[in-house]
Amino acid sequence: MLIKKIQQVPAKPVQMEGAENVSVRVIFGPDDGAATFAMRVFELLAAGHTPYHAHPFEHEVLILSGQICLTTEKGPVALDPGDAVMVGANEKHQFKNLSAAQPASFLCLVPVEYQK
Amino acid sequence: MLIKKIQQVPAKPVQMEGAENVSVRVIFGPDDGAATFAMRVFELLAAGHTPYHAHPFEHEVLILSGQICLTTEKGPVALDPGDAVMVGANEKHQFKNLSAAQPASFLCLVPVEYQK
Repeated sequence: MLIKKIQQVPAKPVQMEGAENVSVRVIFGPDDGAATFAMRVFELLAAGHTPYHAHPFEHEVLILSGQICLTTEKGPVALDPGDAVMVGANEKHQFKNLSAAQPASFLCLVPVEYQK
Repeated sequence: MLIKKIQQVPAKPVQMEGAENVSVRVIFGPDDGAATFAMRVFELLAAGHTPYHAHPFEHEVLILSGQICLTTEKGPVALDPGDAVMVGANEKHQFKNLSAAQPASFLCLVPVEYQK
């Protein structure tokens, strides 16, 4: 059994093209022996965002803090803490911090084979 | 893409033997087309608890609210919001609300084939 406090897991900048002011903490991944899926926490600094992109696997997301705009193929959706999102494989998506002053964060799970 | 507010997903009492005053909301499961893993939110009323049990698949858990005692094979551990737990397959575990007055809640993910 593994127990971790989110804030104690190191945050690493997301270097992917199209990402700005976003970092990730891998809470449970391959290095922890996660068997099926990986748990990560993404933190968006003021005006930070993930890339607008798609990939051949799903996300399950829970907004933890802040005000986030989810860009979808059908337009933008405002998300609050307690909102959950399932992004299907190959659906384009982007998470953007709507605040220019406050950070925002969300939990994002993926099949473990896609957590590198 | 599916977007849900946790509070709008119906909560159902957990009927499992050994569970008391606990309900579950299936945020993303087989009925939603979840491909690999299922996202659920468990709510423990005052003094509520899940069974002390084990099963042949893992949990990944994030404490969302309240003060929870996790019973493990090596003893009890107090958990706060923002604490994450990976329970391995076949490890005994129980989540118990430490408060006799306030509810507590946690996110719990499982491989989708075990969400019935």
